[in-house]
Amino acid sequence: MLTRIDHIGIVCFDLDKTVEFYSATYGFEVTHLESNEEEGIREAMLKINETPDGYASYLQLLGSTRDDSVVGKWLAKNGEGVHHIAFGTNDVSGETVAIRSKGVRALYDEPRQGSMGSRINFLHPKDCHGVLTELVTAATPDSE
Amino acid sequence: MLTRIDHIGIVCFDLDKTVEFYSATYGFEVTHLESNEEEGIREAMLKINETPDGYASYLQLLGSTRDDSVVGKWLAKNGEGVHHIAFGTNDVSGETVAIRSKGVRALYDEPRQGSMGSRINFLHPKDCHGVLTELVTAATPDSE
Repeated sequence: MLTRIDHIGIVCFDLDKTVEFYSATYGFEVTHLESNEEEGIREAMLKINETPDGYASYLQLLGSTRDDSVVGKWLAKNGEGVHHIAFGTNDVSGETVAIRSKGVRALYDEPRQGSMGSRINFLHPKDCHGVLTELVTAATPDSE
Repeated sequence: MLTRIDHIGIVCFDLDKTVEFYSATYGFEVTHLESNEEEGIREAMLKINETPDGYASYLQLLGSTRDDSVVGKWLAKNGEGVHHIAFGTNDVSGETVAIRSKGVRALYDEPRQGSMGSRINFLHPKDCHGVLTELVTAATPDSE
C-alpha cells in the first residue's frame, strides 16, 4: 500500500542557489544533505510536512556534479523543473512486484539505496502517463 | 506560512484512462471530480494522505476539453506529465503579497477560485527555478 507522497524530485542548475530560493521565499529548511559521487548527484531534502504513517513529505532538490550524470543529461535536455514524484510504502519490494504484474516496468530488478538510507525503485514514465514515479521505503520513522 | 504539499498537478491526454491507471496500479481513489467549462478543464482529485494541518495531499489529474485550453496547449507542447506543484497555506493572499515582495511574480493580481472551493494563486516558473508553483488556501478542513 502506498501511504504518502514521499517527495517531489526537482532538478536544478545550481543546488546552493535553489536551496537558498526555497528557504528565502517559503521558509523551507534543509533537513538532510547528501552526495553520491558515483552518480554525480548532490541533493537537499526539505521537509514540508509530516504524514500520518509516521514519515514525512519532502522536496528533493537535485543538482549535478558533472555533465554526464543522469541529472546533468536531464538538465541539458529539459532545463530545471520537476523530475519525478515519489510515493512512500512500507514494502517497496512487494509493491514493485505487484505493480510489475500489472504491466508497468520498473527501472531496477531489485530496490536500490535511495536518500537517507531508504530503499527505492522507479517506474517507467512511459507506463505512467509521462510521470517518472518512484517508490520509497524509508529507513526509519522520521522522528525530527 | 506554507504547511503542506497540497497537491501535485499532472496533465494527461485522457482523464478517464489516467484515473483508471492510478486506481488500478496504486489503489488511489478519486475523492473529487470537477469541470470548468470556461477554462476547458476537467480534473480529478485523488487524496493520498492527510496532513497535520487538518487538510491533505492530493494528486490533481488534469484533462483538457478543447485544444485551445491552457491544458490543451500544454499537452500539445510538452505531452503528459507533471504540470505544477502546490503548497497549502491558511492565507493565500498574505503569502502572495509576501512572496511578491521578494521579487517573485504571481500570475494573478488577486487569488482566484481553485479546486474544491479553494482560493489559489500561481508563481511564475521562471522565478521559481523552472517549477510552476501554486499557493492554495483550502475552503474548509478536509473531514473525510
